[in-house]
Amino acid sequence: MATPVSPLAVAMPALPSMDGVRLGAAQAGIRYQGRTDLVMVELARGTKVAGVFTRNKCPGAPVDWCRENLGQGKARALVVNAGNANVFSGRAGADAVQATADAAADLVGCSTREVFIASTGVIGEVLPHEKLTAALPGLHSSLAADRWEEAARGIMTTDTFPKGSTRTVELAGGSVRISGFAKGSGMIAPDMATMLAFVFTDAALPADLLQDALSAGVKRTFNATTVDSDTSTSDTVLLFATGRAQHDKIGKDDKKAARPFRDALEAVLQDLALQVVRDGEGAQKLIRIDVTGAVSKRSAHRIAMAVANSPLVKTAIAGEDANWGRIVMAVGKAGEPADRDRLSIGVGGTWMARHGTVIPGYDEGPVVAHMKGGEIAIAVDLGLGDGRATAWTCDLTHGYIDINGSYRS
Amino acid sequence: MATPVSPLAVAMPALPSMDGVRLGAAQAGIRYQGRTDLVMVELARGTKVAGVFTRNKCPGAPVDWCRENLGQGKARALVVNAGNANVFSGRAGADAVQATADAAADLVGCSTREVFIASTGVIGEVLPHEKLTAALPGLHSSLAADRWEEAARGIMTTDTFPKGSTRTVELAGGSVRISGFAKGSGMIAPDMATMLAFVFTDAALPADLLQDALSAGVKRTFNATTVDSDTSTSDTVLLFATGRAQHDKIGKDDKKAARPFRDALEAVLQDLALQVVRDGEGAQKLIRIDVTGAVSKRSAHRIAMAVANSPLVKTAIAGEDANWGRIVMAVGKAGEPADRDRLSIGVGGTWMARHGTVIPGYDEGPVVAHMKGGEIAIAVDLGLGDGRATAWTCDLTHGYIDINGSYRS
Repeated sequence: MATPVSPLAVAMPALPSMDGVRLGAAQAGIRYQGRTDLVMVELARGTKVAGVFTRNKCPGAPVDWCRENLGQGKARALVVNAGNANVFSGRAGADAVQATADAAADLVGCSTREVFIASTGVIGEVLPHEKLTAALPGLHSSLAADRWEEAARGIMTTDTFPKGSTRTVELAGGSVRISGFAKGSGMIAPDMATMLAFVFTDAALPADLLQDALSAGVKRTFNATTVDSDTSTSDTVLLFATGRAQHDKIGKDDKKAARPFRDALEAVLQDLALQVVRDGEGAQKLIRIDVTGAVSKRSAHRIAMAVANSPLVKTAIAGEDANWGRIVMAVGKAGEPADRDRLSIGVGGTWMARHGTVIPGYDEGPVVAHMKGGEIAIAVDLGLGDGRATAWTCDLTHGYIDINGSYRS
Repeated sequence: MATPVSPLAVAMPALPSMDGVRLGAAQAGIRYQGRTDLVMVELARGTKVAGVFTRNKCPGAPVDWCRENLGQGKARALVVNAGNANVFSGRAGADAVQATADAAADLVGCSTREVFIASTGVIGEVLPHEKLTAALPGLHSSLAADRWEEAARGIMTTDTFPKGSTRTVELAGGSVRISGFAKGSGMIAPDMATMLAFVFTDAALPADLLQDALSAGVKRTFNATTVDSDTSTSDTVLLFATGRAQHDKIGKDDKKAARPFRDALEAVLQDLALQVVRDGEGAQKLIRIDVTGAVSKRSAHRIAMAVANSPLVKTAIAGEDANWGRIVMAVGKAGEPADRDRLSIGVGGTWMARHGTVIPGYDEGPVVAHMKGGEIAIAVDLGLGDGRATAWTCDLTHGYIDINGSYRS
C-alpha cells in the first residue's frame, strides 16, 4: 500500500484559525496502525449547517444520520473516522452512529442531533465504535484552532496527499473566511475510499442561503468531476457557518449581498474537488473538458461527463495520444443532441476536427507537446446552441488497476 | 500488436453451407498487411434483411447507408472492410460508401440499394475506397458456400479469435438454419474495433417478423453485454433471410409458429455476443450478473448493467476478490429503486450479504475457489418485485490499459 504521492499533488495551504472552530485528530486504531484515523471538530454555539450527500441508493448509516439531522439546521460537533465506512452494516451500523453521537454530545454539552458524523473505508464490516468512543475524550481535550492539516490527514484513506483550501471574501461591513478540507482518491472506492469534504465559515448567513449556495456550488464543482464513474455510498459535503464574523446582516433573499460569498464558496469547493481528481487512483494527468454550443447547460454537462467517464478517452490520454476519434465517440454516446457535421474537437487550444471531418493539414506538433504535460484541455463545440459546461477527470492508468485489483487483505 | 489469444476463447464451429449464401474474403491492403480485410457475401434474389444499429449520435457513413436502405427490405450483397471505420470522414465518407455499393451492385447485377455495407477500424481517416473497388471483382469471382471462417477472420480488428455460431430449428413443414459471424473486442474501441454481427437464415419469413425477432433478440443479448461502456459509432447487426428453406408459410402475426425461430435466433445472437465479451480487450474472466427481485424488467436490466459497467467491480474480479461491498455500491448508483435492507448479494451460488448486512459466519471457501475460475457468476436480489435481467461483461485488467493506452502509430 506504499503508493507514491500523485505526480499531480499540490501542497496543502496553511489554513488560518477561524473563530468558533476547534479541531484535531487522534489514533483510534480502527484499521490503520501508526497513523491518525479519527477527527473531531467542535463548533461554537449558534453554528448553522448545510449538507449535500451521495445519491447512491445504498447509503451508509452516517449519511442517514446526517440527512435526518440536517433539518434542525444547527451543529456543535463533527466526528469523522477513516478505515471503516460503516456501510451495509445493518442495525449495528445505526447503533455505532448513535454511540458515537452520544459520546461526542456528552463531551461538548450539546444535543446528539447537533453532532454530525461521516465514515470512510471498507464496506460491510461492523464499525468497532468502542474504539472511537474510547479515543474521543483525549481527542476532545486536545482540540485547537490551528490543527487543520492534522484533520485533513486524519480522514485520508487511499489519498496520497492532504487536501485543503481557503479564501477570504469582503462582504458589506466586514470580511469573512471560508476554509475546508477534503479526502477522496477514487470518486469512490468502497473498499478504502469515498469523497468527503468539510467546509467552515465564520459568516453569519441564513440557513436557507447557506444550503442554496452549497447545493449550487457542489453542482458545478464536485458533481462535475469523476475519477471512475462509481458513486460512493458515503459521499458527504458539509458546510458549517459559525456566524462569528462581523459584517452587515444579509437576508435570505438578498442575492446581491450574498454573491461574493457564493463565489468564494464555489472557489473553495472547486479547489477541493480538483485536489480530489489530482489524487485520483493512479492519476498521471488532470483532464479538463470544456463543452460549448450544446442545446442547454444540462445537455453540455451530460456530454462533458460522458467524455470524462469514457475509459477509451482516459486510456488514450494516459498513452499521450490525442485520439480525437474517441472523443467523437464519447460525445455521440451521451445520448444528447449532437450533429456529427457541426461538431468540432480541440485539444490544448488546437482545433483538430471540424464539421464532421479532420481539419485538412492541421499541425499536430502543438497537440503532441500538450499531451506530454500533466494538465490536458479538451474542447468540444457542438455548434447547436449556447449551452456550456466544464467537467474534470484524470487519466486511466495501470496504477488504477493495481490499486483496485488487489486483494482486500 | 501481437496480442495473445484470449484465455476465454472458444473454437469457431464449422458453419454448414446455406442455400442462397456465397461468401469470401480478400486482401485489399486497407491498413493491415498480410491478412484479409475485405469480406463480401452474395445473397440469392428475394433475400430479406433486418437490422439493428448503434445508438451513437455520431454514426459512421456505412451506418447511415444501411439505415436508409433497410426500408426497402431486400438485400443482394454485403460488403465489410476492416482497418478503417469510415467514421467522421465528412463528404468523402459518403462518397466511399456510394462507390463501394456501385461496384458491388455491378458485380452482382442488383440495385445499389440492395448492397449493405459495414466498416470497422480507425476513425477520422478517409477510407481508400479505390482499394476496395479494385479488390472486389477478384473477390466476387471466388465466392463460395463454405468460406464462413474466412469471412469471420476477414472482419477482425483487435479480435484474438474468429466468432461464429449456428443452429438448426424445426418449423412446421421443414427445418431452417440460422448461422452468423461477428467481431468485437472492446464493445467499442474506435481506434481499431467495433461490434459487427451478420446472421443468415434460409427461413422464409415476413420482413416485419424478421425485424421484430432481431430487435427483441438483440435487446436480450448484445444490448445486455458490455466490455467498457463505450458505444461504437459503427455497431451493426444485420439479419439476412434467403427464404430458400422448405417449410409451411408463417404469417407475420403467427407468433406461435415463429416462436422456435425466434428462440433459435436469440441463441445464435447470445452465442455471438458472449464470444465478443470473451474476446473483450484484456479479458481474463467472463462475468454473468443475474438480477432478480427488481421492480420491473427494465429496472433489473439497468441495475445489471450498472454492475457490469463498474470499474471497481471489474478490477476487483480481475484481482479475484469477491468484494461484495463494491457490488452494493454499483446497485445503489444505478438510480433504480433499491432498498439497502432488502438487498441480497451472492457470488458463485453462495449468498454473502442479505438484509442490509453480511451473513454472519458465511463460508468464504467456495467463493474464493469460484473467483479463481474463468467464469464468474454474480447474483443480486433486490427483494422488491418480479423484475429480472441478466448482463454479461469481462474483468478490467492491465491488458485493457495496454491495448488502449498505446499510440495509434
